[in-house]
Amino acid sequence: MSASAPVVAVVGATGAAGGTVLRVLAERAFPLGELRLLASERSDGAVLQFGDASLTVRPVSDATLDGVDIAFFAAGALTSRRHAPAVAARGGAAVDKSSAYRMDPEVPLVVPEVNAATLAGHRGIVANPNCVTIPLTVVLAPLHRAFGLRHVTLATYQAASGAGRDLVAELALQERADAEGSEPVATVYPHVLHGNVVPGGWRMHGADTDEEVKIIAETRRVLELPELPVSVTTVRVPVAVAHSAAVWVELDSRADAAAAREVLAAAPGVVVVDDPESQRYPTPRSVAGTDDVQVGRIRVDTGRENGLALFFSADNLRKGAATNAVQVAELLLAG
Amino acid sequence: MSASAPVVAVVGATGAAGGTVLRVLAERAFPLGELRLLASERSDGAVLQFGDASLTVRPVSDATLDGVDIAFFAAGALTSRRHAPAVAARGGAAVDKSSAYRMDPEVPLVVPEVNAATLAGHRGIVANPNCVTIPLTVVLAPLHRAFGLRHVTLATYQAASGAGRDLVAELALQERADAEGSEPVATVYPHVLHGNVVPGGWRMHGADTDEEVKIIAETRRVLELPELPVSVTTVRVPVAVAHSAAVWVELDSRADAAAAREVLAAAPGVVVVDDPESQRYPTPRSVAGTDDVQVGRIRVDTGRENGLALFFSADNLRKGAATNAVQVAELLLAG
Repeated sequence: MSASAPVVAVVGATGAAGGTVLRVLAERAFPLGELRLLASERSDGAVLQFGDASLTVRPVSDATLDGVDIAFFAAGALTSRRHAPAVAARGGAAVDKSSAYRMDPEVPLVVPEVNAATLAGHRGIVANPNCVTIPLTVVLAPLHRAFGLRHVTLATYQAASGAGRDLVAELALQERADAEGSEPVATVYPHVLHGNVVPGGWRMHGADTDEEVKIIAETRRVLELPELPVSVTTVRVPVAVAHSAAVWVELDSRADAAAAREVLAAAPGVVVVDDPESQRYPTPRSVAGTDDVQVGRIRVDTGRENGLALFFSADNLRKGAATNAVQVAELLLAG
Repeated sequence: MSASAPVVAVVGATGAAGGTVLRVLAERAFPLGELRLLASERSDGAVLQFGDASLTVRPVSDATLDGVDIAFFAAGALTSRRHAPAVAARGGAAVDKSSAYRMDPEVPLVVPEVNAATLAGHRGIVANPNCVTIPLTVVLAPLHRAFGLRHVTLATYQAASGAGRDLVAELALQERADAEGSEPVATVYPHVLHGNVVPGGWRMHGADTDEEVKIIAETRRVLELPELPVSVTTVRVPVAVAHSAAVWVELDSRADAAAAREVLAAAPGVVVVDDPESQRYPTPRSVAGTDDVQVGRIRVDTGRENGLALFFSADNLRKGAATNAVQVAELLLAG
């Protein structure tokens, strides 16, 4: 492939995730020899703006993927399973945002700040973790390197956009209904999300949500700690963009808040926002639109030996998805 | 005092907490020989409706508290410190919603479902825990009795009304601004709460929020487990009414989900709402306006030995405040 002018495809270009990939490619001036916007048959012929260019969306197929150096897959696991192998077989690289290959031992699961080295042996498909696991591992990896990680507990505060564009639209309609004093309606999600907190809406795997199962398995894989105990509860909150989590870790060695803050402040991708006395801490509203993982409320967890507590927020569409994928592609080009 | 017709005062009758006390008194047909609505000088002469009666608000003072059998204090710690002793000295009982006496060893801190027996030796003042501690201990006490409690971790999802009426009004204004596409403004709270998650806004005690300090100390006191390790992060969410929390407990003996569910289903004040496959779990919208503590997502925490995870929601103005106080008063009358 040409590192200076690769042929790039975005599969799922008309969706929320694909749209954010396009935005991030433009912002980061990703080198583009050619840019192909691909989607399902339904969107065939749609025209999207990319910088000054108007680009026509074409159906994803072996033919439209032929000659592609890097294909971003942002269209769900089924599409990835069906088309990513064709990209790999033709010598290109598929950077997959879906869950299709995340637990495939042949496919690296990459967060560039954490485990870029695992890209080395890739066979044409690279997976990206889910939108909680990415910021979580960006925060945990430096703490693990410095102090050793023994246990993680987290409760999430997840944005509507993590469930897709339809829930964001439904949340906006509910917001208007509540503002007007009429009854908000839930059709996309099992409960009204506006003015509410919903500890569900995911498919269940026994007693755990799909999301909880993913966070545990993917966090272990990215950190290369296959036995790491992770206790997690996932919760949806009435926020459009940016996931947050209250996190507790137990470490091998004692870390006071200052030592942890120093390690996190030096970690790539992390911005420490931590002066609660002055009301400075991470929030979805302040992190949305950025590529940072904001971390704050860093303090000793007095309830545990070598315990530490913290809170993070990160844009689930950017660092939790598109930005991570584009960073992976940048490493592939550099590699 | 006359148990069938006590003289009752509500101090802070014009506030949100006092208003809810009045509503709960009416709903529960609390026996009232006389009802006095008291507040600060500012509200002197205001007229409030109670059932069919129009009652005039008078300033709280030794004179207006004279002869009172039961005084509900719902007006802040300063007012309680200043006036509750006068009620006690005159042979009445002050049921205090503020934080003034919660850690006073001479004053029982009572959640009727948990430690009603501690009322026995009261000296005229009874304290109520804060609005997270009440539902938390209602859930933890039966688990402790059945399985022994070793450790508690919780992340809260707290409603605006916990910070007072002004934040509820500000949240409604922000909701309207967001619905109209204009810029929401924060003046009451340090951050815009609508469409956001705010892990702060409380005063700090070193690294911990005021709220975290209270939850730890009061939970230990109500459960009579002075050494119980509690790891807690408090977070404000854009919900008008009802606090929720993701909770993890470690137990002395192993409890599977079915055993825990059985214990909780039999516990007073608890309603188990736990069928996530059918999208049934606690939410603020479904619990608001009730006196229940809804508990769900009850499952084994595989990350811990003898670990259990769960999620609860409870109306912070009712069971988290007014209802608990009225239940205490009912016990005093019965006692």
